[in-house]
Amino acid sequence: MKTSTPLWTQAHRAARMNPSIIREILKVTEQPGIRSLAGGLPSPDTFPIEAMREATAKVLTDTPREALQYAASEGFGPLREWVAAMLRGQGQTVDANQVLITTGSQQGLDLVGKLLIDGSSPVAVEAPTYLGALQAFAPYEPHFVSVDSDAQGPRPEAIEALPRVAPGTRFLYVLPNFQNPSSRVMPEARRQAVVAAAQAANVPLLEDNPYGDLWFDQPPPASLASRWPEGTIYLGSFSKVLAPGLRLGFVVAPPALCPKLLQAKQAADLHTPGFNQRVVYEVIRNGFLDQHVPTVRARYKAQRDAMAAALKVHLPEGSEWVAPEGGMFFWIRLPAGCHAYHLLPEAVKAGVAYVPGEAFYADHADTRTLRLSFVTLPPAEIEAAVALLGGVLKRHLNETPSPTTP
Amino acid sequence: MKTSTPLWTQAHRAARMNPSIIREILKVTEQPGIRSLAGGLPSPDTFPIEAMREATAKVLTDTPREALQYAASEGFGPLREWVAAMLRGQGQTVDANQVLITTGSQQGLDLVGKLLIDGSSPVAVEAPTYLGALQAFAPYEPHFVSVDSDAQGPRPEAIEALPRVAPGTRFLYVLPNFQNPSSRVMPEARRQAVVAAAQAANVPLLEDNPYGDLWFDQPPPASLASRWPEGTIYLGSFSKVLAPGLRLGFVVAPPALCPKLLQAKQAADLHTPGFNQRVVYEVIRNGFLDQHVPTVRARYKAQRDAMAAALKVHLPEGSEWVAPEGGMFFWIRLPAGCHAYHLLPEAVKAGVAYVPGEAFYADHADTRTLRLSFVTLPPAEIEAAVALLGGVLKRHLNETPSPTTP
Repeated sequence: MKTSTPLWTQAHRAARMNPSIIREILKVTEQPGIRSLAGGLPSPDTFPIEAMREATAKVLTDTPREALQYAASEGFGPLREWVAAMLRGQGQTVDANQVLITTGSQQGLDLVGKLLIDGSSPVAVEAPTYLGALQAFAPYEPHFVSVDSDAQGPRPEAIEALPRVAPGTRFLYVLPNFQNPSSRVMPEARRQAVVAAAQAANVPLLEDNPYGDLWFDQPPPASLASRWPEGTIYLGSFSKVLAPGLRLGFVVAPPALCPKLLQAKQAADLHTPGFNQRVVYEVIRNGFLDQHVPTVRARYKAQRDAMAAALKVHLPEGSEWVAPEGGMFFWIRLPAGCHAYHLLPEAVKAGVAYVPGEAFYADHADTRTLRLSFVTLPPAEIEAAVALLGGVLKRHLNETPSPTTP
Repeated sequence: MKTSTPLWTQAHRAARMNPSIIREILKVTEQPGIRSLAGGLPSPDTFPIEAMREATAKVLTDTPREALQYAASEGFGPLREWVAAMLRGQGQTVDANQVLITTGSQQGLDLVGKLLIDGSSPVAVEAPTYLGALQAFAPYEPHFVSVDSDAQGPRPEAIEALPRVAPGTRFLYVLPNFQNPSSRVMPEARRQAVVAAAQAANVPLLEDNPYGDLWFDQPPPASLASRWPEGTIYLGSFSKVLAPGLRLGFVVAPPALCPKLLQAKQAADLHTPGFNQRVVYEVIRNGFLDQHVPTVRARYKAQRDAMAAALKVHLPEGSEWVAPEGGMFFWIRLPAGCHAYHLLPEAVKAGVAYVPGEAFYADHADTRTLRLSFVTLPPAEIEAAVALLGGVLKRHLNETPSPTTP
């Protein structure tokens, strides 16, 4: 008797690929009747549909053949120039040659992972950190090192300790502005300290900034890249200020890394759709975002206020949160005895959904945390959704004996 | 005195990333005055600009919010259904759930490589094979095994020998229809023999079919996937039948591989632009391609004829080629004493460009080969370009003493 060898052999790295808990939850919550605070979906009311209609018509009239043909892997020249000029306006030293247009900033995470991560090499992340980055890096089989973090970001002492606790750390991945999921913004002093610590530790930075434009009262301090250009790769996105369905992001890397990053991009998808790049450039070229983004901020601020008020009324005593100063999320820590993942089915049954916070930790997850998006539902729906959530939590706490451990 | 450690450490795989010789050549040939036969660029005259204009307007009127929002990683449901139905019409057994929409079929190559290739695992390829596939797989550090190939495709005996010469071969990558670069189409009998040999060797297939619709006199035989669905991953593309600038392709995989392939896709770019998927679906949903593709075939056939005639007149004696029955390329073998790569600068100086064939070999390149695209230039320009090329070759042969080795 002969045992047959399996036909398909998957790579070792496949074991590190996992379904996105958020996308699994989103599937459940697509049922009608669920008020979902789970997805990080920008409000479609903010999408510049009329401007998109005009821009697509113009591109398909003026340069249809160029827009529909194969194009440079680097991206559309004028769009790269626009990105470089925009970042220079924010204090970064950037030449357009350093800008690589990507298929969403998620692709930037994948390309950087591909270029910099060897199997078992340490990659430092905040705790919590963006789930999508963990998923992008994981197939390259890093050893994730969670850097001790507080309400201001990663702690400088923990960064300085990296050469000892995780020698050869390839980079520290950090979201300084309205971090997904915690929404915390890194203050000026912490930015200085983080950069100084990273320099002392000889650990370069991967700075991800999809939310920086979504501030409510004041813009965040200058980027880390502007403080340490040769030691920072910077990722940006048009998903939150225009629309995510276009899949347009960008990477700005120190010049020495650009050729290999470009080769990784060529191998991955040849180039980001030229049609989309030209349409977006047409939309933004004459200052459109200066008018448009303030309307997004105003809308999201009102939704933030609605959720802050609702949380105050409905969440049980012992719940902890800080109202975000920008971005898209509230990050909640539930009272002792509440396990966000275990409570999710009950919440969905009651008609509300969220993302359990544990998905956002590389290790040692805080299971009492959860993330609520305030940008997808209108204020009245937010109030109703939070009321449902509060009811689920209070029922659970009333039915459960007080825990002996927090 | 202390030697400082470099700040950035690149992954081991970065050494396997290389600039695309085609893209490097394309840069050179963008100078005005060069007649380029180098790029594999579809003729922009075939782009369905009016249909695109109508479809974008319709999508941005009927479903703008959905088109511009984050979307499912699998792809737009109706487009997946369309692909499945189209392939069933060609004799494949496909459910829409097996269809993953990708950002061009280049991304399909990357995702399959990511899922199936471990460092040093053997990956079998034809000789020659598609350069972009070598580039997509290389970062996963396979050991490439060139399978002995003839004018009909890979030789069955060479496939049967794989368990002995390259045990654990993860897959055989094969382009049955109008292969890039050689344009050969695999005949019916060879398809049967290749599938039988692969089954005997327990080596699954990665079938890439970007050119299958571009036949001139008769459609190619049924796909390999239709003969061995559980042993074949199939890649397709809208680049050659609509327009490459949209970056839309698809992967059809056996059901057991779909979940991990989807996770690899999520990690790579979340999803392919929903806007593009909806626009293309709008263009093709009512049989547009049935009208459109025959016009592309007719155009390319006329260009094929123009190049065949010009080659006959202008190429020096001893040059070898077979007029392609579809696709986009002539594959030429130059007379002994001609080295296609070394002659390229002279050709560019004379005003014509091509791609040296050696780029298309994983190893043991035939340096006398080159690839000419007949789809980018109109017939009169093709004649002029081939005349220039013939002149360069004849001058070279006249100036060079007869070689003692071929």
